Amino acid sequence: MPNISQKGLQMPESPIRKLVPYAEIARKKGHKVYHLNIGQPDIKTPQVALDAVKNANIEVLEYSHSAGFESYREKLSQYYKNQNLPIDTQDIIITTGGSEALLFALGSTMDADDEIIIPEPFYANYNGFTVASGVKVVPVISSIETGFALPPIEDFEKLITPKTKAILICNPGNPTGYLYSQEEINQLAEIVKKHDLFLIADEVYREFTYDGYKHYSVMNVPGLENHAIMIDSVSKRFSMCGARIGCIVSKNKEVMAAAMKFAQARLSPPTYAQIASEAALETPQSYFDEVITEYKERRDILISELEKIDGVKVATPKGAFYCIAKLPITNANDFAQWLLETFELDGETVMVAPAAGFYSTPNVGLDEVRIAYVLKKEDLIRSVAILKAALEIYTKK
Amino acid sequence: MPNISQKGLQMPESPIRKLVPYAEIARKKGHKVYHLNIGQPDIKTPQVALDAVKNANIEVLEYSHSAGFESYREKLSQYYKNQNLPIDTQDIIITTGGSEALLFALGSTMDADDEIIIPEPFYANYNGFTVASGVKVVPVISSIETGFALPPIEDFEKLITPKTKAILICNPGNPTGYLYSQEEINQLAEIVKKHDLFLIADEVYREFTYDGYKHYSVMNVPGLENHAIMIDSVSKRFSMCGARIGCIVSKNKEVMAAAMKFAQARLSPPTYAQIASEAALETPQSYFDEVITEYKERRDILISELEKIDGVKVATPKGAFYCIAKLPITNANDFAQWLLETFELDGETVMVAPAAGFYSTPNVGLDEVRIAYVLKKEDLIRSVAILKAALEIYTKK
Ligand SMILES: Cc1ncc(COP(=O)(O)O)c(C=O)c1O
Ligand SMILES: Cc1ncc(COP(=O)(O)O)c(C=O)c1O
Repeated sequence: MPNISQKGLQMPESPIRKLVPYAEIARKKGHKVYHLNIGQPDIKTPQVALDAVKNANIEVLEYSHSAGFESYREKLSQYYKNQNLPIDTQDIIITTGGSEALLFALGSTMDADDEIIIPEPFYANYNGFTVASGVKVVPVISSIETGFALPPIEDFEKLITPKTKAILICNPGNPTGYLYSQEEINQLAEIVKKHDLFLIADEVYREFTYDGYKHYSVMNVPGLENHAIMIDSVSKRFSMCGARIGCIVSKNKEVMAAAMKFAQARLSPPTYAQIASEAALETPQSYFDEVITEYKERRDILISELEKIDGVKVATPKGAFYCIAKLPITNANDFAQWLLETFELDGETVMVAPAAGFYSTPNVGLDEVRIAYVLKKEDLIRSVAILKAALEIYTKK
Repeated sequence: MPNISQKGLQMPESPIRKLVPYAEIARKKGHKVYHLNIGQPDIKTPQVALDAVKNANIEVLEYSHSAGFESYREKLSQYYKNQNLPIDTQDIIITTGGSEALLFALGSTMDADDEIIIPEPFYANYNGFTVASGVKVVPVISSIETGFALPPIEDFEKLITPKTKAILICNPGNPTGYLYSQEEINQLAEIVKKHDLFLIADEVYREFTYDGYKHYSVMNVPGLENHAIMIDSVSKRFSMCGARIGCIVSKNKEVMAAAMKFAQARLSPPTYAQIASEAALETPQSYFDEVITEYKERRDILISELEKIDGVKVATPKGAFYCIAKLPITNANDFAQWLLETFELDGETVMVAPAAGFYSTPNVGLDEVRIAYVLKKEDLIRSVAILKAALEIYTKK
């Protein structure tokens, strides 16, 4: 029997999926499981997007242009410009989700064994994309003590080697909810310019900021044009994760030419989903206002309820819809499993994502979990009550 | 300015895209261009698939399971079983096109610098996928003289090194239209078993066979379970290229576990497109009968018209909807460009794909073009008439 690849062996399992069989056990016992573990919002997709697909008159469902519909790219450029992002049509290639945009960014800028520095904890699938691309992740630790702010720039500088090609940030952060300040982005800009690196910014949660904080994009930094690569997605913005549409954005023409060749090889992004995404740009501002208000309220309730639990520490997220909570336990993985396998409060339990899977350094974040606030407020309140009751029992065991 | 990757530099341009600016010139002159160069069928997508999307009641367009809808995988397994392919639900992972299935297959079985043997001419994007995966293509030449039959098995054997991990075939072939016989598949099966390699078979044109020839799949070979990986797609079968749905199929559990990790990293295949693809399985047999009849008639007309031209040689395709034609010229690339830039017959011209781009060995196939018979019969007749007139002038130049 032939051996599979080292890549195939090294590809990480999602930190969430490992618990799936235990969620199955909980369900088989008839327990209701509140899913705090996934980033699948319950928010309705804008009707204008759904209607566009319903009303599309298609006879032959054809490949689109490899860079995506020209009309969509033009409108998207306008959308960005309205948000003060100076992005032209030719700076955009439409991809199959932000996921594919990340793969194109890595493929266009890095070769086997090249190194990419990423502040951790980070979106767990960066591990998968880097293994798939054959490149090495060099983590720089950010900590709950500082609310997951940008680590001191010297920490980055220490890690730069001749093999370093890029720094990857997620802003606002999944799983941290941290939003980088303009000053922090400028610090990163300086270091990538000094060392001639790319700055890849995953900004798929750009619109989700709270408390009046404003998102500052890498595309806004003057003089960073040849270094900045932005990753974007419609998944969260329009609650249309299943569309699978995102984009890679850069003013660096060589990067875009390379990304275009990756795009051509896979022919085109999905046609129906592009129809939906193009129409979604017509979504009224009121939709976003409501969504942001909803997320903000959820966040406020979640954080205040969590803070009431003895021994729990949270960093208040300024953006996205995740937070990391430090629990008074030693192994969040065991705890998460126990929550599903054994615990119940009046027939209900919760599923959380152990945070260790979001760190690349071993044995860090073992007492942390990631919680996504993508559930209704009453469900969040109930979930935290369950978590509290569970911790009381678990910590006495 | 930071340098892009070697990968980004090495990614090949599609052999077709290079001519696109010249097609633009032709169009600007007001010339009508017959596109013999692309594999985008004009056949209507089954209504049942289009209706399923129109009638879908979606409120939140969610991620699907990373392996694809369970319901779709089950029906697909049944579809295969009806075609005598013993494929179970768990042997299938739904992908974003056959393109992604190819990437997963390479990623799951091969590491950087590993070698994959591919009979050439082959589907040009194999070059892109192998560069993206960091693996090396080792071509084995098949020739128009033998109608692009499987090269002698000794030719493969000579090329096998300790780095060889797989043989990749396309059956029926794009760009050759060649359909491997059961005997040829069995020869390949023997050699991969002997050398412990994977046999990756791109069977996206499986249904398109003519003259009573029957497709013999790698999934039909007894004892090949751990070696065989099948690549499939709805793109051509249901003329729904824009859906972007395919799948990777294998009985090798390690391969499927690795592929599943690649699938999880990119979250899910497109939801709308899965709805369409699942419904497409209800397409009545009459649709296929008509489509195959249509393609067969197109092929017959194309081949007989081409054979009437002095100095043109074609290998009659037994499957798919492409053929390679050898022309009485020395540089098909220059000729194809001239067709667009300079030539016209009553205001019309044709676009063909120079075949050199389908070979990995340099300077092979320079006098060959690939012609796709995805146009109506009268357009094919007209296209060949244009080609004939063009060749008369061009060869006298
Ligand atoms: C930080 C981050 N980046 C990228 C993605 C990929 O999303 P998609 O491929 O759906 O655009 C996600 C999805 O959860 C994410 O959280
Ligand atoms: C031989 C072959 N394999 C794979 C593909 C990829 O098709 P898709 O990604 O649309 O399934 C094509 C498309 O033309 C093809 O000709």
